[in-house]
Amino acid sequence: MPIRVTVWHEFRHEKTSKAVKAVYPDGMHVVFKKAIEEQLKDEVVVKTATLDEPLHGLSDEVLKNTDVLTWWGHCAHGDVKDEIAQKVAQRVREGMGLVVLHSGHYAKPFKLLMGTNCHLKWREAAEKERIWNVSPGHPITAGLDKDHIDIDHEEMYGEHFDIPTPDELVFVSWFEGGDVFRSGCVWKRGAGKIFYFRPGHETFPTYFHPDVRKVLANGVRYVAPTPGVVPYRNTSPNIKIPLSPIAGEHVVDEALHKH
Amino acid sequence: MPIRVTVWHEFRHEKTSKAVKAVYPDGMHVVFKKAIEEQLKDEVVVKTATLDEPLHGLSDEVLKNTDVLTWWGHCAHGDVKDEIAQKVAQRVREGMGLVVLHSGHYAKPFKLLMGTNCHLKWREAAEKERIWNVSPGHPITAGLDKDHIDIDHEEMYGEHFDIPTPDELVFVSWFEGGDVFRSGCVWKRGAGKIFYFRPGHETFPTYFHPDVRKVLANGVRYVAPTPGVVPYRNTSPNIKIPLSPIAGEHVVDEALHKH
Amino acid sequence: MPIRVTVWHEFRHEKTSKAVKAVYPDGMHVVFKKAIEEQLKDEVVVKTATLDEPLHGLSDEVLKNTDVLTWWGHCAHGDVKDEIAQKVAQRVREGMGLVVLHSGHYAKPFKLLMGTNCHLKWREAAEKERIWNVSPGHPITAGLDKDHIDIDHEEMYGEHFDIPTPDELVFVSWFEGGDVFRSGCVWKRGAGKIFYFRPGHETFPTYFHPDVRKVLANGVRYVAPTPGVVPYRNTSPNIKIPLSPIAGEHVVDEALHKH
Amino acid sequence: MPIRVTVWHEFRHEKTSKAVKAVYPDGMHVVFKKAIEEQLKDEVVVKTATLDEPLHGLSDEVLKNTDVLTWWGHCAHGDVKDEIAQKVAQRVREGMGLVVLHSGHYAKPFKLLMGTNCHLKWREAAEKERIWNVSPGHPITAGLDKDHIDIDHEEMYGEHFDIPTPDELVFVSWFEGGDVFRSGCVWKRGAGKIFYFRPGHETFPTYFHPDVRKVLANGVRYVAPTPGVVPYRNTSPNIKIPLSPIAGEHVVDEALHKH
Repeated sequence: MPIRVTVWHEFRHEKTSKAVKAVYPDGMHVVFKKAIEEQLKDEVVVKTATLDEPLHGLSDEVLKNTDVLTWWGHCAHGDVKDEIAQKVAQRVREGMGLVVLHSGHYAKPFKLLMGTNCHLKWREAAEKERIWNVSPGHPITAGLDKDHIDIDHEEMYGEHFDIPTPDELVFVSWFEGGDVFRSGCVWKRGAGKIFYFRPGHETFPTYFHPDVRKVLANGVRYVAPTPGVVPYRNTSPNIKIPLSPIAGEHVVDEALHKH
Repeated sequence: MPIRVTVWHEFRHEKTSKAVKAVYPDGMHVVFKKAIEEQLKDEVVVKTATLDEPLHGLSDEVLKNTDVLTWWGHCAHGDVKDEIAQKVAQRVREGMGLVVLHSGHYAKPFKLLMGTNCHLKWREAAEKERIWNVSPGHPITAGLDKDHIDIDHEEMYGEHFDIPTPDELVFVSWFEGGDVFRSGCVWKRGAGKIFYFRPGHETFPTYFHPDVRKVLANGVRYVAPTPGVVPYRNTSPNIKIPLSPIAGEHVVDEALHKH
Repeated sequence: MPIRVTVWHEFRHEKTSKAVKAVYPDGMHVVFKKAIEEQLKDEVVVKTATLDEPLHGLSDEVLKNTDVLTWWGHCAHGDVKDEIAQKVAQRVREGMGLVVLHSGHYAKPFKLLMGTNCHLKWREAAEKERIWNVSPGHPITAGLDKDHIDIDHEEMYGEHFDIPTPDELVFVSWFEGGDVFRSGCVWKRGAGKIFYFRPGHETFPTYFHPDVRKVLANGVRYVAPTPGVVPYRNTSPNIKIPLSPIAGEHVVDEALHKH
Repeated sequence: MPIRVTVWHEFRHEKTSKAVKAVYPDGMHVVFKKAIEEQLKDEVVVKTATLDEPLHGLSDEVLKNTDVLTWWGHCAHGDVKDEIAQKVAQRVREGMGLVVLHSGHYAKPFKLLMGTNCHLKWREAAEKERIWNVSPGHPITAGLDKDHIDIDHEEMYGEHFDIPTPDELVFVSWFEGGDVFRSGCVWKRGAGKIFYFRPGHETFPTYFHPDVRKVLANGVRYVAPTPGVVPYRNTSPNIKIPLSPIAGEHVVDEALHKH
């Protein structure tokens, strides 16, 4: 069974900015899709969804049939409906993988899952970024031929990046102008895994960089749900009958308790 | 400077249930307050706030002047206004400590900070709970004279407890009926620390247990903000001027970017 | 390319104890091997090695050609040569996966990798163990049909288990007699992953339990090295030539420094 | 009761190198001692110990009466006796705090506690280091007035730094020449805490930097043992009598088992 990937993209910049359109004429989502397909081939089936489609392209049916969702957004985070954002976050808790890219650090579903403000520092100066692998052997680094990735021109993101301590820290970025950033982070929420990957400003051809494409695809594979696991339990059940005998007296005020 | 503690309590059960009133005639908050004062003495100044006060007793002024907030709630989580819950969560990110007790696992501010559903299993059978210390030497365990705490009768909470991986796991509970629970957990969100402590069902005299009182007070001390730290930055600033010279060309489309 | 597994076993109890021989007449290693092959089929090639073979069956050649090593030992930890233990630990840092079973908590390579004493509590009372899944969706739990595993009779291991905080906590055990134990733990050391799995006393048929066999095999798969990653760097290189120009004066006393 | 600090220093470079003697004429340990006393005043009593003293100044008596040990070493790690290194590591597990500085990353006790090789990259080019605070509000950052520390000239240490995932990551360094480093890390081993702090090359006046002195002192305070905690248990006791009745038959082969 292939991994069913939905590439979600805001798809606004490309319609209004010549600079962005010059780099991503058909939209960034098309580039994400191709990158994932090119790397993972038969392992995946990739579809796309964008903000301005009905329900942002994320109907219950689509979410239900998505194993991994990738997310790029920037100028229109506020236009994502709260209800959809909540549904995406809940699907992650139920086991769907989520790959959040670059300015997606402020995406509603990401913030809902993190519990923090996800602030950072930034600077647009087309500066050099070097992404260091701080977790040798990590599956997300497969296929990279060096212990770092060089990107000639990128937007800077700097610490403090206001996220919970990552469960796994895979990459740390160095920026020419004096900043560092935890740029590859993995968390688990419920039964779902989340991978945040920093690079990818819309005016730079970052997503054509072979190593960035590898990491994107590796991330999709890494957060994909494992077949055959027990489904996430979305309740707090009352387990009336214990598995072992209980000696104490049962002194419960039934009227009180509803979890 | 003493730690300014605000003990928040739902304070509903005591008004409607004889069983609860019998154990906590003046309300659980009064017992929390006394326990913290008794343990930490001059280290703290403790006030209380309850759900049915205006703004739930949590005005901006109160929150601003609170170093550590403790929270017990159960049957009326839904009556906490979303706006207040958001403000509490934000104050935590800004550095306020939060101690969440027992059924507070479903409290709105806690869920906002965790990013998960915070589900668990439960059973009311007045069963035995043994709380094991899995982090010897941890400041939260100071004053305990054994490596475990025995509670004769408690409500059971069982795994899976749907929380993010704790930054620090201090206690794991054993229950007579066959369950285990991560019952002492610490997380950081922004600049603030959160301590969740499991025991404390409203029909049992758990908060009169000397060890539970010690842990409650230790928790308050542990999550209290450190004086003299740099204030939390609640923005994503544009750092236009780099700290080191940048060689690349500045190719920015100014019109596009607003973080 | 299949995962090359070496099953290492102390293989002493079976030769001297009727009780153990009755359960594992051909040795526990034969049972481990079959369990892994039965679950992972063409994904693996499994060999065995035992303490009393030359070099404990762990020559440099064998270690070099092992992707995942499983380890069961108990009464003869002290007979494992320090030099071999060091080589095993180093191979893990270089990327080999390690699955440590039950009383292997005291195995020399495990202690070298943990940096702790790995003490625990224990009791042999043929008591009931219930192993709770505290990480829903984790790949190591694939194929289990419930959120816990019941084992009718086992040796008890209790907290405090003197290990570093696991990178991933997958299972927590409940024991009839009043104890809990972090019984499924994952750590990373260098480029290698380690999975510790608690159950498996030599006088009980634990390794014939279908769920235990699944977890054992899942563990092997989970700690297996990822193909195509950059090899572990076993040096501290002097990077004389920086990647970015340095403005400061070079004021180094060459005579001093050898890392 | 003040924190009893022992400042351990290799104290070799100062005797043979003019460059080092020029910066630290009386030895680096004297500077460490003064920095800690100046910051923590009555909170501490500080003594020193050096490599060339009998038992390296670390007799059983000294270790027993040390709450926090700080460690700087570089060219003579190999001269530290294995037996003393083992005793230091064991004292940490029993609750003593350890602050490891700069080239102490290769110190024997540190490596024993980490379980890894502790390799890194390095370059001596008197380059600029900027140490970013990635954990706002952390007690180790108290008294710093900015979110970073600038050091004009330092030796570079670069990733991958071969350590286990830190329990707490406090600082990440940026280096002018293109490298990053996890430069402030906390781990727990047994009941003891370890703080590694990167800066401090022997030919630079780093330890006269006011912010470095603050972090050093904060680190001492942070890893100091908490009074009143249950002592570390340095055994694996057989708990014959369970705390709860056990239904199963007792089928133990007594001859076999010695933990």
